[in-house]
Amino acid sequence: MLETKTAGISEGIQITKLITDIASKAKSASRILAKASSSSKDQALLFMSDGLLSQSSFIIDENNKDIEDSKARGFSTSFLDRLTLTPSRIKAMADGLKEIASLHDPVGEVVKMWRRPNGLLVGRMRIPLGVIGIIYEARPNVTADGSGLCIKSGNAVILRGGSESIRSNMAIGTVLRDALKKADLPGDSIQIIPVVDRSAVLEMLKLEDYIDLIIPRGGEGLIRFVSENSRIPVIKHYKGVCHIFADESADLEMARKISFNAKVQRPGVCNAMETLLVHEKIAGAFLPSIVRTLEEAGVEIRGCRRTREIIPHMKEATEEDWYAEYLDLILSVKVVKDLDEAISHIEKYGSMHTEAIITENYTNAQSFLNGVNSSTVLVNASTRFSDGFELGLGAEIGISTSKLHAFGPMGVEELTTTKFIIYGNGQIRT
Amino acid sequence: MLETKTAGISEGIQITKLITDIASKAKSASRILAKASSSSKDQALLFMSDGLLSQSSFIIDENNKDIEDSKARGFSTSFLDRLTLTPSRIKAMADGLKEIASLHDPVGEVVKMWRRPNGLLVGRMRIPLGVIGIIYEARPNVTADGSGLCIKSGNAVILRGGSESIRSNMAIGTVLRDALKKADLPGDSIQIIPVVDRSAVLEMLKLEDYIDLIIPRGGEGLIRFVSENSRIPVIKHYKGVCHIFADESADLEMARKISFNAKVQRPGVCNAMETLLVHEKIAGAFLPSIVRTLEEAGVEIRGCRRTREIIPHMKEATEEDWYAEYLDLILSVKVVKDLDEAISHIEKYGSMHTEAIITENYTNAQSFLNGVNSSTVLVNASTRFSDGFELGLGAEIGISTSKLHAFGPMGVEELTTTKFIIYGNGQIRT
Repeated sequence: MLETKTAGISEGIQITKLITDIASKAKSASRILAKASSSSKDQALLFMSDGLLSQSSFIIDENNKDIEDSKARGFSTSFLDRLTLTPSRIKAMADGLKEIASLHDPVGEVVKMWRRPNGLLVGRMRIPLGVIGIIYEARPNVTADGSGLCIKSGNAVILRGGSESIRSNMAIGTVLRDALKKADLPGDSIQIIPVVDRSAVLEMLKLEDYIDLIIPRGGEGLIRFVSENSRIPVIKHYKGVCHIFADESADLEMARKISFNAKVQRPGVCNAMETLLVHEKIAGAFLPSIVRTLEEAGVEIRGCRRTREIIPHMKEATEEDWYAEYLDLILSVKVVKDLDEAISHIEKYGSMHTEAIITENYTNAQSFLNGVNSSTVLVNASTRFSDGFELGLGAEIGISTSKLHAFGPMGVEELTTTKFIIYGNGQIRT
Repeated sequence: MLETKTAGISEGIQITKLITDIASKAKSASRILAKASSSSKDQALLFMSDGLLSQSSFIIDENNKDIEDSKARGFSTSFLDRLTLTPSRIKAMADGLKEIASLHDPVGEVVKMWRRPNGLLVGRMRIPLGVIGIIYEARPNVTADGSGLCIKSGNAVILRGGSESIRSNMAIGTVLRDALKKADLPGDSIQIIPVVDRSAVLEMLKLEDYIDLIIPRGGEGLIRFVSENSRIPVIKHYKGVCHIFADESADLEMARKISFNAKVQRPGVCNAMETLLVHEKIAGAFLPSIVRTLEEAGVEIRGCRRTREIIPHMKEATEEDWYAEYLDLILSVKVVKDLDEAISHIEKYGSMHTEAIITENYTNAQSFLNGVNSSTVLVNASTRFSDGFELGLGAEIGISTSKLHAFGPMGVEELTTTKFIIYGNGQIRT
């Protein structure tokens, strides 16, 4: 939720100076951090984790002020819940940082190395991106998670959370910066934007000479605002309109379990299933059982004409339903004549996020995996696995729905780039 | 060179429709191309190569019209030279396409695969980016090279060359599209923007739903214009202020040969050396010989105070010289006290493009390779090797100076992204 207050002219100049100053400090810090050893970064992460626990009453006090303000401003109960920090939530943040410390350090890894005919030995070595800007909404845990992932990957970070959580974020930031200093790393590697004015975000988005990447974390409105106003590359994660296709040869019990899991286990997230596609040859055998199971769990089903011929009591799916990311206990269901129609439907209506096929047919499994170019494509597993932790990336900074740089779940490796390193012995070009 | 003519309102609507139509056709074609086999793409590339040769008189006729127009508009001789196509230049384009056909196809490559504790087999498979827009200036060879690299990597391409070469580009485009069709691939995979109006570029840069990446090829003005106006990710290649550091322990004869090569072999390119840094302990022994060698080749030397103490006759280097990309037979020279000062100088004044150290000292070689985060870092070899072909990427679409997605020389692999592919046997999330 971006506040709409905008600054006057002289205030504007002050904000420009403030933000440029913050970005410049982050950039200087990033050069030191880029050369820091894995052990010193991990030490810092452990100090950060300890600091959150030992300073939890300070953090909770500051958080309470944010909550009081937000209550006075009439925010919803669910908003207030997301904003609230409790000892157990702080413990979860601290545990998260410990887990990040235990990950493999991507920096310095040589991902490939080869010899050229002239004897040059050429390699590609992972290096940090530099300075990463994270722009997010209420949840204060992003302040700790985002900082942890950036520090691990050798990047400085500039955090700009929602105005409602500014005191909580500043408090967490203070604790994290102290921990960095204790580990002899620059405190300036973590910067919290201390002003709530929206122009601060616009200023940030102009600083392409200081900031290498912007990651917006929040709703579609925030992401659009950021990507339309940024001169800095932005990694977007838009919506997930995820599909499961139950093929002719699907094991129906497996299809039922996976579809149920993908829709019901956590409906409000981007990798939950929104549309179920069913091969016409199994529609009669499969649909009654899966629909009953889902309806018993409170799911509203919206079906195509052929689905409703089999189960007449459901609502009809409209054209908009095929595009919809419900993020709720609602599912659209369509009967298709074959794999090709399923893939065409996904290409037309999908968001290139995550799709699964349930099949026992080898050729169809391979055709689906090769033919669908969404960021995650599964055979015989739930769409809910499209998640950095579940895929083994260790942790997740987001799920990219744009193809440049990273596509799909992003871990610490995706916060690096590679440089070419070349060992020669006097080679010149002729 | 972007022309400044802008369209009236009704003309503007027509251009919007025209460009959107082109982009939409390219997107549809890209879906078919993404699934095309390596052999059919290579067949198309060979047909494209043959077509350029067999249709060379048609291409040269159209090119002559462009040349006549440009002469009438009073363009310089060097500009006209870059614009001119001869049979041997067409032969070079045709050979380039054959070479691209012989490269390894990056699409479908599984770059990594691992097993999760729950049995899921997770891999990352290379897929095309989709649709790539290339915006370039006079040289018509980009039409063929750019198309070849995009087709090889399974991407559709939208080409927008300078207005001066529009007939040449349209002619080459016609030949290339015919070759695609002959290989049963969609001709719409290659699109040439047929209008010279600048607003066509602005329209292109808005179409983020159709175009996945924009590559501007040309001067800094073009790149800035494109990156400031684009909603689509842009891979920039700005300037190369490349350094060589001759360390205390350098083999002086090697340092002389490499420095000479890096400055003189082709001074007008981005990987030529612009500043030579010399360790103070070898300045007296090294500078007189390298300066004499360079001056004999017509290089103007601009030195720091300490350089001029050794060789008084040269011009003094100003603060601006350290930032300068001369692209000419000019070199700035600075004596530094050690490796750290060399690295600090590069961090302050460099453009993160390409830097080399000449040293026999193991620790300094490693410190330089690890400590300098430019896109290409070399030990004991010429900066001129920072080039896709020289590094073994097979061909080059550009040299990225921004870190996102690709950093440094970019080949066909950098025109792909990866998706996650997952083989399961019924896994659900708990």
